[in-house]
Amino acid sequence: MTIRVLVWGENRHEQAEPEVAEIYPDGMHNAIRRGVEARLGERATVRTATLDDPEHGLTEEALAATDVLTWWGHAAHAEVANEVVERVHRHVLSGMGLLVLHSGHWSKIFTKLMGTTCTLRWRSQNDRELVWTVNPTHPIARGVPHPIVIPAQEMYGEQFDIPTPDELIFISSFTGGEVFRSGCTFRRGNGKIFYFSPGDQDYPVYHHPDVLQVIANGVEWAAGDPARRELPTLLRYETGDFFNGHGYRGAMHNKEGSQ
Amino acid sequence: MTIRVLVWGENRHEQAEPEVAEIYPDGMHNAIRRGVEARLGERATVRTATLDDPEHGLTEEALAATDVLTWWGHAAHAEVANEVVERVHRHVLSGMGLLVLHSGHWSKIFTKLMGTTCTLRWRSQNDRELVWTVNPTHPIARGVPHPIVIPAQEMYGEQFDIPTPDELIFISSFTGGEVFRSGCTFRRGNGKIFYFSPGDQDYPVYHHPDVLQVIANGVEWAAGDPARRELPTLLRYETGDFFNGHGYRGAMHNKEGSQ
Amino acid sequence: MTIRVLVWGENRHEQAEPEVAEIYPDGMHNAIRRGVEARLGERATVRTATLDDPEHGLTEEALAATDVLTWWGHAAHAEVANEVVERVHRHVLSGMGLLVLHSGHWSKIFTKLMGTTCTLRWRSQNDRELVWTVNPTHPIARGVPHPIVIPAQEMYGEQFDIPTPDELIFISSFTGGEVFRSGCTFRRGNGKIFYFSPGDQDYPVYHHPDVLQVIANGVEWAAGDPARRELPTLLRYETGDFFNGHGYRGAMHNKEGSQ
Amino acid sequence: MTIRVLVWGENRHEQAEPEVAEIYPDGMHNAIRRGVEARLGERATVRTATLDDPEHGLTEEALAATDVLTWWGHAAHAEVANEVVERVHRHVLSGMGLLVLHSGHWSKIFTKLMGTTCTLRWRSQNDRELVWTVNPTHPIARGVPHPIVIPAQEMYGEQFDIPTPDELIFISSFTGGEVFRSGCTFRRGNGKIFYFSPGDQDYPVYHHPDVLQVIANGVEWAAGDPARRELPTLLRYETGDFFNGHGYRGAMHNKEGSQ
Repeated sequence: MTIRVLVWGENRHEQAEPEVAEIYPDGMHNAIRRGVEARLGERATVRTATLDDPEHGLTEEALAATDVLTWWGHAAHAEVANEVVERVHRHVLSGMGLLVLHSGHWSKIFTKLMGTTCTLRWRSQNDRELVWTVNPTHPIARGVPHPIVIPAQEMYGEQFDIPTPDELIFISSFTGGEVFRSGCTFRRGNGKIFYFSPGDQDYPVYHHPDVLQVIANGVEWAAGDPARRELPTLLRYETGDFFNGHGYRGAMHNKEGSQ
Repeated sequence: MTIRVLVWGENRHEQAEPEVAEIYPDGMHNAIRRGVEARLGERATVRTATLDDPEHGLTEEALAATDVLTWWGHAAHAEVANEVVERVHRHVLSGMGLLVLHSGHWSKIFTKLMGTTCTLRWRSQNDRELVWTVNPTHPIARGVPHPIVIPAQEMYGEQFDIPTPDELIFISSFTGGEVFRSGCTFRRGNGKIFYFSPGDQDYPVYHHPDVLQVIANGVEWAAGDPARRELPTLLRYETGDFFNGHGYRGAMHNKEGSQ
Repeated sequence: MTIRVLVWGENRHEQAEPEVAEIYPDGMHNAIRRGVEARLGERATVRTATLDDPEHGLTEEALAATDVLTWWGHAAHAEVANEVVERVHRHVLSGMGLLVLHSGHWSKIFTKLMGTTCTLRWRSQNDRELVWTVNPTHPIARGVPHPIVIPAQEMYGEQFDIPTPDELIFISSFTGGEVFRSGCTFRRGNGKIFYFSPGDQDYPVYHHPDVLQVIANGVEWAAGDPARRELPTLLRYETGDFFNGHGYRGAMHNKEGSQ
Repeated sequence: MTIRVLVWGENRHEQAEPEVAEIYPDGMHNAIRRGVEARLGERATVRTATLDDPEHGLTEEALAATDVLTWWGHAAHAEVANEVVERVHRHVLSGMGLLVLHSGHWSKIFTKLMGTTCTLRWRSQNDRELVWTVNPTHPIARGVPHPIVIPAQEMYGEQFDIPTPDELIFISSFTGGEVFRSGCTFRRGNGKIFYFSPGDQDYPVYHHPDVLQVIANGVEWAAGDPARRELPTLLRYETGDFFNGHGYRGAMHNKEGSQ
C-alpha cells in the first residue's frame, strides 16, 4: 500500500520574513515533503497544501484522498476557517493519520483534538536541543541517534498542557535546562496522532536528517487503512445481535428504538 | 478542607415522563446530592443546579465557588448554551474537578474535553450490569463489592469512542454479553475528570448504595486545591529564570519577546 | 525482513489426556504454527519447540535465531528450568518479541517479566467468550470481527493481577458475566510482549480463525530489529559525550569512574 | 488513620566514607525519617531499619506493621538476603506501599517488581538537577516549586530501563543536558510504588526541603488500607456466584474443580 501524504504548511513566515525565506526558499512544507519522499520512496506519495489555497487546500476531496496529514502552523492559526477544522477533525476521527509539528501545538485542530490549552513555556534564543528516546522499541524512534542533537532551536518547556500521551517516545532538554515531552502519540477515534516538537521557522531544523527521519517514521506509523475510514457512530444493538447496529432516534425514544 | 460540590442535573425526563418522576420525585440531581451528603458528611457541602436555572445555574460565581461539578444530561444536551460550556471548560482546565455521569458521555462539555465523538453501542432492555474493579488500589474503588451488581440497566457497550483513559478503574458487563469501560479517569489541564457510566433515568440506579459510594469517592478524588485554581498559559521564560514567565506578544514577535 | 518465529508448547495435556489429543492430534503448538504460517506466508518462518526437548528447545542458539517466541504452558510451569527462564528473560529484554498465550499467564517467564502474581478468577464450564476490541487502530486488532465469538471456552475473570498494560486492545466477557482484559501489550527492556488469553487445551480455540489471526497479528507487531538485539546496560557518560558510555566499576567507585 | 512508615537504609557509605558521614552523621535514613516526621506530624509514625539489623530489620512482623516502606540501597544490593526480598515483594503485592529512592533503582526488590534491568546512564560530577513537574494535579507534586532546583547531584539519564510508568510526575534535566524520568508511579498487585531519583550519598540532597516534601507526599499517596492487606490468589468461581472463590487444585484438575 502506498501512503498518500499531504504536507500542510501555513507558509506565512516564508513570505513575510526574508531570513526565513533564506532558510526555506520554497517553504518549510517543501522541505518536509522532500524529507519524507527521500526516506519513504515508493512507499508514499506526497503532496503539499498551504493556507492560501482555496479552502486551505483541505477540501473534502483532498482529505478523502489523504492517509496522513502533517500540520505546521504558527502566525496564522486564527485564519484557519472553522469549517475546515471541523472537516479535518472528522477525518482524523474517521481514521486519517495526523502529524502535528512544532508550533502546530497551538493550532485549532490540535487543541480541538486534545481538549486542553496546549500551552507551554517558551524562549527563542539559540538553545541547543537534545532529543532523548525513552521508548526504544517504538517504530517512530527507528534509525535516529540517542540523543538527536539540534545545534540551535527555540525552547519549548514544561508544563506542556496536553492530556497524558498514549505513548511518550521522546523527551527533549535545552541549554537553559528546560525539558519537554517532544514526541508523543495520541489515538482519537479511529485516527492516530503524533506530535513532534523539533522544527521552527527561524532555525534550519527541517533540513536536519534525524528530524526528517522521525517525521518519515511518524508518517508510516500514523497511516490507517483507507478501506476502513469511518466515523464512530452511536447505534442500538438488539440482544444477541452483535453486528447490526441500527437507528438511534433521540434521547426521548430510548424504549421505542427496538421496534 | 470542605469540598464544595455542585450537582448539575438536566432535569427534563423527570418533568416529562411520569415513570421517571416516580423513581426520582425530586429529580436525579437530588438523589445524587443526598448520596454524596450521606457519605461525605462534613467533608463536603453539596448544592444543585439544573438546566432551567438562569445560565443553567453555572454562572462564573457559581463555578468559582465549586471544587467538584457532577454532570448528568441526556435529552437536552443541545440546549446547553455554548458560552456556559466554554465557562465550564475553562474552570475544569483551571482545576475544578468534574464527574460525568452516564448519558453525560454525549454532553457538549465531555466531548469538548475528550476531542472525540464519545459514541458507544446501546440498548435499553433491562440488562443486568456487573461493574468489575480492575484497579483495586484506586481510591475511587474503595468500599464497593467486586462486582457491583445492578439488577436492571441500560446497556452501554464498546466501542466507546474516548481517548485512552489515564486510569481504567471499572469494566462492566451486561446480560447480553457486551462490555464497557464504565469507570475512567482523565486529567485535562489542572482538572481531574471521572467518567462513571452506571445511572439512568429509567432505572433506580441513583438509589443504589454502591453506585452512590463510587460517586462520593469520585468527588473526593477529583477535588483540587482551590488556592491553585489557574488556567495554564503560554509565557516566555528568560535563560536562567525558571520562575518568572512574561508576556507572549504574538507569533511574529518571537525574538522581541525578550526586550 | 522475514520474521523468525518459535512456537513453544508445553505439550503435556496432549500426551496425557485423550480428549485433548483428539482436538490437537499433533499438539497445540502445531495448530498455532500452521495458523501463523497460513497468515504470514513468506513474511515468517515458523519452528516449534516443546518442554521435553533438550533445554526445552530454548538454547542460546535457538533464542538468538528467534525474533518472536510464543509461549503456551499450563500443567508443567514448575518443570521449566530456571536457567532457561533467565535466558528467555534476557533475550526479551534484549529485543526478542514474546507472545504469552492463555494459561501462560502463570508461567515463570511471564510472572518474572510482570513482577506480579498474574492470578485471576477462573472456571471451566463451556462459557461463551466474546472478545471486544477497545483499540480499533491497533495493528493487532486488524481483520477480526467486533466481537470475536468463541462458542465454548474456559472463563478467565478479573481481577487479573498484572501491571497496567501499556495498551489494552481486547476485553472479553463470558456467559457467566465475568470480564477479562484479554489482549494486552507490555514493553520490557527492548522487547515487546503481547498477552492474549483465548486458547485452551479443552476447547478447539486454536482452530478458530479469528484467534489465529490475532496471534499472527501479534507476531508481526512484536517482531524487533535483529540488528539491534542488545541488553540495556549501566554505563558512565562523561559530560558532553553522549555516545560513548564506559565502564561502571561498582558502587564504591562512583568518583573514580571518570579517570 | 496514622500511616506506619518504615524508612530502610543500607547505611554502608555512611560507615565507610568520612565525607558521607559528614553530610549524614546519623545516616541518610535518619535524615529521611526526620523529613517525613516534620511534614506529616501526627499523620504518620516513622521507624528506621538498616541492612545490618537482624533480617535487615525486615521481619514478617515488621512488614506486617508497615503501611509504607521507603528503600535506599546502593553499594550492598547483593547482600540483601533473597528470602527478605521475597517477603518484601509479597507484602508490596498485598498492599504495602513502597518508595524506592535514588540508587534503589538497582535493588533486588525494585528489579523484581519491574521485571527489567532498571539500568540507566550515569555520571557523578556535580551536575545541577532541575526537577520539572509534568503532572501538576498529582498529590505527590503538591507544595513544591516548578522546577525543584538541586544545586549539585549525580546525573541519572535516559534510557532508564523501566516499564512505562502508570504515572509520570517528574522529569529531570542535568547540567550536561541529560534527562531522566525522575518521579514515576507503578501499581503492582494491591501495592502502590513511587520511584523518586533525587538523593545521593555524596550530596546533601536529603537535607533539601523540596526533596523531603516529595518523599512525604509519596508516603501519603502510597499508603494502602491495612484492613485490606491481601495477596491476590487464583480461585475458582461457580457460575452465578461472584463472591465465593474456592480451591484451585492444579492444572490437571480443571474440570473437577467444581465438585
